[in-house]
Amino acid sequence: MNSDTHTREAGNRMVLLSGGGGGARLAGALSRVAGDRSVAVVTNPGDDFEHLGLLICPDTDSVLYSAAQNIDPERGWGRAGESWSVFDELRALGGPGWFQLGDKDIALHLLRASLLSEGLSLVEATESLARRLAVPPWMTVLPATESTVRTKVVSDQGELGFQEYFVARRCEPALKDVFYEGIGMASPSNALRDFMGPRDGGAVDVVLGPSNPFLSLAPILDIPGMVPLLRGAARRVVAISPIVDGEALKGPAAKIMSELGLTVSAAEWTRWIDDRYPGLVDAWVWDASDQNLLETSSGEGRDIRVTSTLMSTPEQADRFGAWLLEACCDAD
Amino acid sequence: MNSDTHTREAGNRMVLLSGGGGGARLAGALSRVAGDRSVAVVTNPGDDFEHLGLLICPDTDSVLYSAAQNIDPERGWGRAGESWSVFDELRALGGPGWFQLGDKDIALHLLRASLLSEGLSLVEATESLARRLAVPPWMTVLPATESTVRTKVVSDQGELGFQEYFVARRCEPALKDVFYEGIGMASPSNALRDFMGPRDGGAVDVVLGPSNPFLSLAPILDIPGMVPLLRGAARRVVAISPIVDGEALKGPAAKIMSELGLTVSAAEWTRWIDDRYPGLVDAWVWDASDQNLLETSSGEGRDIRVTSTLMSTPEQADRFGAWLLEACCDAD
Repeated sequence: MNSDTHTREAGNRMVLLSGGGGGARLAGALSRVAGDRSVAVVTNPGDDFEHLGLLICPDTDSVLYSAAQNIDPERGWGRAGESWSVFDELRALGGPGWFQLGDKDIALHLLRASLLSEGLSLVEATESLARRLAVPPWMTVLPATESTVRTKVVSDQGELGFQEYFVARRCEPALKDVFYEGIGMASPSNALRDFMGPRDGGAVDVVLGPSNPFLSLAPILDIPGMVPLLRGAARRVVAISPIVDGEALKGPAAKIMSELGLTVSAAEWTRWIDDRYPGLVDAWVWDASDQNLLETSSGEGRDIRVTSTLMSTPEQADRFGAWLLEACCDAD
Repeated sequence: MNSDTHTREAGNRMVLLSGGGGGARLAGALSRVAGDRSVAVVTNPGDDFEHLGLLICPDTDSVLYSAAQNIDPERGWGRAGESWSVFDELRALGGPGWFQLGDKDIALHLLRASLLSEGLSLVEATESLARRLAVPPWMTVLPATESTVRTKVVSDQGELGFQEYFVARRCEPALKDVFYEGIGMASPSNALRDFMGPRDGGAVDVVLGPSNPFLSLAPILDIPGMVPLLRGAARRVVAISPIVDGEALKGPAAKIMSELGLTVSAAEWTRWIDDRYPGLVDAWVWDASDQNLLETSSGEGRDIRVTSTLMSTPEQADRFGAWLLEACCDAD
């Protein structure tokens, strides 16, 4: 983190745990509406992989692009105004074509490689990329750990690396289990510890973004020491349901819940998180379309808040981001 | 080398030692006119370097592009019809801009990285790239060694890596010495040994291309075992002067000769090669414009042949390539 971030010591801080989809959209909203506080977006390391000799960090990059207002709004990943000269030539040469890489995206990967080869850590390189992309100074994009954590999927087609499952096979294999290779040796990045550390004024609120619990949040939260770090420093921990009206808005969260024998609902997602990380979450955010669930179950005694969580447009995302800041973080 | 090459056992073989300039042009000519024999172009490893996390092999790539008929004819390096999307974005992000990389070129570097990460050796990866680029089957592009050899320059501005000297500082520092880091531990690539090995029919002729003797030929010839390998297997070794009428057609060869206290002439270049590699060369090729030198010195008893060595156009290069095959290699 640079001095811009450190000098904002007096204000409130937010820590957002994020994958590459809904969490990245929320990060984009906070980069527009959260200027009066410092926001650290903690990104999922489990999607990172080596490809064509480069380290690629898809979730971190989606957050970077979203927070810099230059993510492609249609695809929801990669850069806006992208071109494909390298990828076209790579395929013309018979190279691997299963993972699409735009020219601007490749420039970022090459620059990350250059920074890492100069001796910067992954967190330092990410901070440098954020500033070069003109991510607003109140936003810090923080890989959850400096260690190597790689999500692996046990499926009916055998054990698969995450990108093999997610991109090459389009989440088609039925999932039996997920594990995070290397996570036992990982620890939260020091920059995250610094960000959460005691300061003269202000509180820290932690938000679990509306991201896939198995593929995005667990590879962050299962890092040894992560839950105690978050819980120990946070005034409040809020979790946003990625399940809306019995479906995932995007991505395989609903499919995976089914395959793991769970009911696909915000209520079931809530129980799953609460069982897996007991005592971590103080308040839950469900989409307005799940109001009926709340009336049926009364939320099993939990603090559940309901609003429209849709972030299909920047306007919707900004509205939700502003609501989140006011309703869940600012109020004491 | 692939089976196409190995099945051409009966014919004559040529081994061309090449840097990235004149040697690459000659390789391009041989890829058009030498179809009745097998040609191995042995490329200089000293220019290779790591940049943006990628291994870049400039001389090898110039030979690949030239032999595949897709080198940029104006620049003399890189791909024809090149675009610069990645490089533009890299500079927009404040990344290193001193080494120009086109999009098609980057695709090749990424594919090489991918092949190396799959476990291919540098020679195997280069062979794969040659076939993908549609280099003609009688042409093999062979890095001189699998080992890491890096040319370093001792100059009036201190010790510099080759690309720092050659590209970033445009050969401006005055050169005091050149050395080849790692060359003492290197050995000729096995693929080159195979190519030169005894076969049922045909002879091997070795050509030292019109390449910079200090920066292109010496990092090949100084590899321990290289001169005995070439001399031991060759019917004839021919060296082509890169000095024409007291100048280098391109590149810093003349400037370096001056800085090292040598007269800039084909005669002096001949003496330098003969002193440094005694007994290696059987025949010398000078440009027609140096006919007068021959009349003055009588070549000091050497077998010197004179023709137009200009390769400014493909037509000139093809004419010279055909002359070389007939006058220096085919005749016994």
